[in-house]
Amino acid sequence: MGSIERIMNVARRVAKWHAAGHRMVVVPSAMSGETNRLLGLAAEISDRPDGRELDMIAATGEQVSVGLLALALKQVGVDAISFAGWQVPVRTDAAHTKARISAIDGERVHRELDAGRVVVITGFQGISDSGDITTLGRGGSDTSAVAVAAGLGAEECLIFTDVDGVYTTDPRVVPEARRLPRITFEEMLEMASLGSKVLQIRSVEFAGKYKVKTRVLSSLTSPDIPIDEEAASGTLITFEEEESMEQAVISGIAFNRDEAKITVMNVPDRPGIAYQILGPVAAANIDVDMIIQNQSVNGTTDFSFTVHRNEYQRAIEVLEREVRGMIGAGEIVGDPRICKVSAVGIGMRSHVGIASLMFRTLSDEGINIQMISTSEIKISVVIEDKYMELAVRALHKAFELEESGDKIAG
Amino acid sequence: MGSIERIMNVARRVAKWHAAGHRMVVVPSAMSGETNRLLGLAAEISDRPDGRELDMIAATGEQVSVGLLALALKQVGVDAISFAGWQVPVRTDAAHTKARISAIDGERVHRELDAGRVVVITGFQGISDSGDITTLGRGGSDTSAVAVAAGLGAEECLIFTDVDGVYTTDPRVVPEARRLPRITFEEMLEMASLGSKVLQIRSVEFAGKYKVKTRVLSSLTSPDIPIDEEAASGTLITFEEEESMEQAVISGIAFNRDEAKITVMNVPDRPGIAYQILGPVAAANIDVDMIIQNQSVNGTTDFSFTVHRNEYQRAIEVLEREVRGMIGAGEIVGDPRICKVSAVGIGMRSHVGIASLMFRTLSDEGINIQMISTSEIKISVVIEDKYMELAVRALHKAFELEESGDKIAG
Repeated sequence: MGSIERIMNVARRVAKWHAAGHRMVVVPSAMSGETNRLLGLAAEISDRPDGRELDMIAATGEQVSVGLLALALKQVGVDAISFAGWQVPVRTDAAHTKARISAIDGERVHRELDAGRVVVITGFQGISDSGDITTLGRGGSDTSAVAVAAGLGAEECLIFTDVDGVYTTDPRVVPEARRLPRITFEEMLEMASLGSKVLQIRSVEFAGKYKVKTRVLSSLTSPDIPIDEEAASGTLITFEEEESMEQAVISGIAFNRDEAKITVMNVPDRPGIAYQILGPVAAANIDVDMIIQNQSVNGTTDFSFTVHRNEYQRAIEVLEREVRGMIGAGEIVGDPRICKVSAVGIGMRSHVGIASLMFRTLSDEGINIQMISTSEIKISVVIEDKYMELAVRALHKAFELEESGDKIAG
Repeated sequence: MGSIERIMNVARRVAKWHAAGHRMVVVPSAMSGETNRLLGLAAEISDRPDGRELDMIAATGEQVSVGLLALALKQVGVDAISFAGWQVPVRTDAAHTKARISAIDGERVHRELDAGRVVVITGFQGISDSGDITTLGRGGSDTSAVAVAAGLGAEECLIFTDVDGVYTTDPRVVPEARRLPRITFEEMLEMASLGSKVLQIRSVEFAGKYKVKTRVLSSLTSPDIPIDEEAASGTLITFEEEESMEQAVISGIAFNRDEAKITVMNVPDRPGIAYQILGPVAAANIDVDMIIQNQSVNGTTDFSFTVHRNEYQRAIEVLEREVRGMIGAGEIVGDPRICKVSAVGIGMRSHVGIASLMFRTLSDEGINIQMISTSEIKISVVIEDKYMELAVRALHKAFELEESGDKIAG
């Protein structure tokens, strides 16, 4: 939520759904810039602030939002009540600044809904078993919304965001990108995890795990547009592969510019080596994305993985300090100037030739592929980051995503 | 607390006391301007915002402060942990925006103190029996500090504020005003309730009720001054009348510019009439200060009282709507342009002539006294507000408060 004006718009939008007979729970984000302001204050004091205290500070952004939204709802004539995460309670583990929701007790919320109120709950935060405030990390409000929807058994979760749905790729990179009226949960998961910033990956995981029907809608439309029209806009994340979806081989091209690759050379090829390399990295709380280990030659292999670019230096340090000598590996090399581009589509399962079209397209553009990783519904390649836009545009065109009619069948 | 720089200064000050072996609990206020900013956001949405939601919003100011102060303490090498009021818990009644503390559970705090940590607790707020966040009203951080000190059985409560102690009167009005090294709890109570803004009246009440030795100190001195020197500065609020204090007849001149007076004329003089007049006023949550009812003449009397100037209009409305007709009273008249000036002193108990000196002094200056009210240790008069400074200066001089030697014995 941005300004007070925007909060009033949210209130009018919620009031419209409420008036149509829906029992509404709303999970607003912090006001625009507020979380950054709060983290900035902490950063002025310490460059490695304690996670528990950071959560204490950062959680206030959403607390202000829920209070203001409840006031705004009352102002437009809707009875409303706000709750902080600990009041619901939204229970999480104790991993401060990146906690995970473990359970949501819906009793108090249902009581308020039964009384005809709209319930406004802080996103992004919960309470640990020791009674401390935890936060879920950036974008945690989406995750909270889906988790609350799951916890309360909601019929549908509407995510209002600053885009009007999920696109075949980022329209800022490919102007011809097209909004997908529906996408399956699995595709959405790949799109989100690959850097399409519409929804936080963990909110999609939650939606999948608890089968929460989730609709991505634009918060930029007038709050007063008819409900039917609003519900038909955006992108619905579904759990059934429908007839019509069989046609779509590739749903979109996702990309992620914030990656860095690291290779541990000449790793002895023996059982447990992957754990010996990645265990200390995980213990340092560094998330690893792609992992590639090739066939060994002469009893050794090269072990590669990607991490977020911000953690590149720290990951290298961990490997040098805790891994290399221990396992008798060779040099550790890396490159923070890479990106990942992926083609995602559930139809890929039953179609061959997708990979070869992807590789040929990149080759035609003179782009060297550094790493490849595939799953049932996506193919990802790591390339030099300066080629990212070019690669996305070329693939978007090659898979004919700009047209809303037939899709290519490989 | 003002800026980050100021938070770092507080941390250094606390670290100094901690290093000297004191077990420290710190109750910081919100950062300068923050509470106003938050209430301003709410005011943009509603001109009569719901109290529960207002508390949800306003409580975040202190929550940010405790997190930042805990980070700052760690930064200067002191282990620290922050708690919001609900985590302690600090229990209050459910009177949102002006809640009163009912109990403080010290168990968790003591556990952290035992572990050698400094505990930082949000002031100004607590949790009601229904699990809602409550706030204690403006200045509630002082009250919280004293309440926490009482609840935990602290040896002493240090209140760091932007003045260096309690003065014989406001130095902005009388430059010769003198800092009192000690003041009794009763005197402090009268000084505070009469508008000396050093401490919130409720913090003084708490200090008295639970006999918390409280010291008012300046937050503007260097955080690094020696502890002995710091402890000797400021004003100590004591509970024993000591030998030396017998001498002081008047400790100070207090005043309050924010008052308004209201008189209900020709009230039938019968039992219960005071309640019939003030009951509806109290029910409208309007605090009444001075109450004066004179001897009746011909079976009717005039009933006067003072309220905060901001509530003057509302109080008149309540009286017109709910009281006048019901009790068969005459006209309701009032004046928002008055002030109250008081002479306060525990020595007054055993000295006569204080009142006459006070009245003569005001008369010599040509100031008309509109109302008089007295207690064992204070005499208050209501006068036209434009004479306030003149009256305070004249009384300060008449009672020879500018000299630190002998006091007048009336």
